[in-house]
Amino acid sequence: MTTDSRIAAPHLAAFVGRTFAAAGVPEADAKILAELMVEADLRGSDTHGVIRLPLYVRRIRAGGVNSKPNIRVVSDRPSAALIDGDNGMGHLVMRRAAQLAVEKAQKTGIGWVGARMSNHAGPAALYATMPLQHDMIGLYFAVGSNNHLPPWGGSETLLGTNPMAVAVPAHDEPPVVLDMAPTVAAYGKVRLKAQRGEPMPVGWMIDRDGKPLTDAKRADEGYLLPIGDYKGYGLSLIIGILAGALNGAALGRDVVDFVKETAKPTNTGHAVAAIAVEAFMPPAAFKRAVDAVVRDIRNSRRLPDVERIFLPGEQSHAKFLERRANGVPMPKPLRESLDALARELNVAPLE
Amino acid sequence: MTTDSRIAAPHLAAFVGRTFAAAGVPEADAKILAELMVEADLRGSDTHGVIRLPLYVRRIRAGGVNSKPNIRVVSDRPSAALIDGDNGMGHLVMRRAAQLAVEKAQKTGIGWVGARMSNHAGPAALYATMPLQHDMIGLYFAVGSNNHLPPWGGSETLLGTNPMAVAVPAHDEPPVVLDMAPTVAAYGKVRLKAQRGEPMPVGWMIDRDGKPLTDAKRADEGYLLPIGDYKGYGLSLIIGILAGALNGAALGRDVVDFVKETAKPTNTGHAVAAIAVEAFMPPAAFKRAVDAVVRDIRNSRRLPDVERIFLPGEQSHAKFLERRANGVPMPKPLRESLDALARELNVAPLE
Repeated sequence: MTTDSRIAAPHLAAFVGRTFAAAGVPEADAKILAELMVEADLRGSDTHGVIRLPLYVRRIRAGGVNSKPNIRVVSDRPSAALIDGDNGMGHLVMRRAAQLAVEKAQKTGIGWVGARMSNHAGPAALYATMPLQHDMIGLYFAVGSNNHLPPWGGSETLLGTNPMAVAVPAHDEPPVVLDMAPTVAAYGKVRLKAQRGEPMPVGWMIDRDGKPLTDAKRADEGYLLPIGDYKGYGLSLIIGILAGALNGAALGRDVVDFVKETAKPTNTGHAVAAIAVEAFMPPAAFKRAVDAVVRDIRNSRRLPDVERIFLPGEQSHAKFLERRANGVPMPKPLRESLDALARELNVAPLE
Repeated sequence: MTTDSRIAAPHLAAFVGRTFAAAGVPEADAKILAELMVEADLRGSDTHGVIRLPLYVRRIRAGGVNSKPNIRVVSDRPSAALIDGDNGMGHLVMRRAAQLAVEKAQKTGIGWVGARMSNHAGPAALYATMPLQHDMIGLYFAVGSNNHLPPWGGSETLLGTNPMAVAVPAHDEPPVVLDMAPTVAAYGKVRLKAQRGEPMPVGWMIDRDGKPLTDAKRADEGYLLPIGDYKGYGLSLIIGILAGALNGAALGRDVVDFVKETAKPTNTGHAVAAIAVEAFMPPAAFKRAVDAVVRDIRNSRRLPDVERIFLPGEQSHAKFLERRANGVPMPKPLRESLDALARELNVAPLE
């Protein structure tokens, strides 16, 4: 990783922006997409940022994603709303949703905005963290863009690695940001093991007989395992209901694999909520209380051979600061795929 | 279990009610407590229902719980509120909180009510299910009443088995109700293994060196393990922040062990939210969509030797129906402890 070349974030964002523009996305939207995708890379979400650009462009060009969506609010209450994304890029839909949730929370204490007819929106933390600057707690839920998880005891992948994120503002400490899927391993980690020819640990996947599957190259024949057995299955289902079923979005058998079916709308569902801290206590007092808990945890006694106890989101925050200063790591295969995309769309390559 | 005698729910509730009344709780409150505690037993929450009555009464008599609380709303926004429980029984505080959340959701689409200065309130599902009859989704979070979980990599129990529950209404199917703690095993299960002299499976607990702990009698020397390693740790912390820190309630080092320190107020925090389905889609359409997902999951292909795929809350719902018809199982040790309590308070014993 340390030998990867680095690209300054503004250069990377400029490249992403011109690529989307060349694919037919209006300039203003292309700029928003670029900022959010590069933010994902800055935060260390290497599997959910710029690496997805070729797929996103492929989906737009195949007609699977609408490059000029009319994103609109179709149901509106003082503290809840539903947005129809008109099959636009998920980042655009969920940025709008998070803004609306914050506006509602400013007026009523909490805002909850669901979305249907959306698409993959990158890492969950992008949207859960948007309310932070307003002294609000952010929550985000999404239906995963393909199904790799069977119900507990089952062998049909009816559920996804449906992610959730919660972001909590602190005072002097970095915000506490939990961003997780309810499976032991993310599917991206499985792909990485396959690429490297390494075995997977027992506990990541099972095969069709329920036996441990450790050969990552055979991942297509198996199923991810949920965290805490039936608990992670339940979490995936509940997240799917909050983000999908409640919004009239796809869940279960209706989920479209966004990698395999590039020309087909996915009707992806998400939900984002903002909770105004001031509705409960003065924000400064709350953020100092979070600081205190964070420090108690960080400084608590450690198990043998553990060097440091991390808070959720702490490593991601450190990566953000480091990468903003030194650039986003650009492994050779990623660089090559972005160069190929530049040639295909006839745009200037990465500087 | 099948050889346990059964007690009809109304008889059990009458006993719980007169016991609380004898301990100084006003009649109306005693009746509410009795109903909720028996509902816990009916739903199969054997470790969180009437079995806790002797402890609750001990805490009231020791001055650790206020028998005549002035439960009041101390912060109020159109969709959010904070309740101070005045150190009353958690059931009373959280029933009030859930009612207020439903009222707010009726007006604004969602209601979120936090509580501080509360106490143990029984199983999480009791409050998450209250919004169901209003065609709402219920969410509940609580800070556990003692700390058994260290941060990931740590060996100090700064966190609890902080529970969360989410309840979703269905049309013809039972509601989907997830009620879980972010640890692999509940501490009650550990106690049960110790009572029976059985070893715990590897993965439930570790000792102070981080090695698997399987001797349940040595549970005091070890720590529960979170589900999904760092993920369950993160969940416990986030639930603790939403239920505790945001409401000015205890979290981390401030948590009082309600079993060991019976005379001390716990300042327990909880949060309950209600999401009105009608803010997103017609409730009947939503509930039919939930039915469809439930049936797809139940009827999906199973792993070898798996007889049935269960939905979250399905087994609890079946127990509720069976026990309401046939009575609550009353194991001999529980009966004896309730008889002893009756003698101590000079109330008529269980019929």
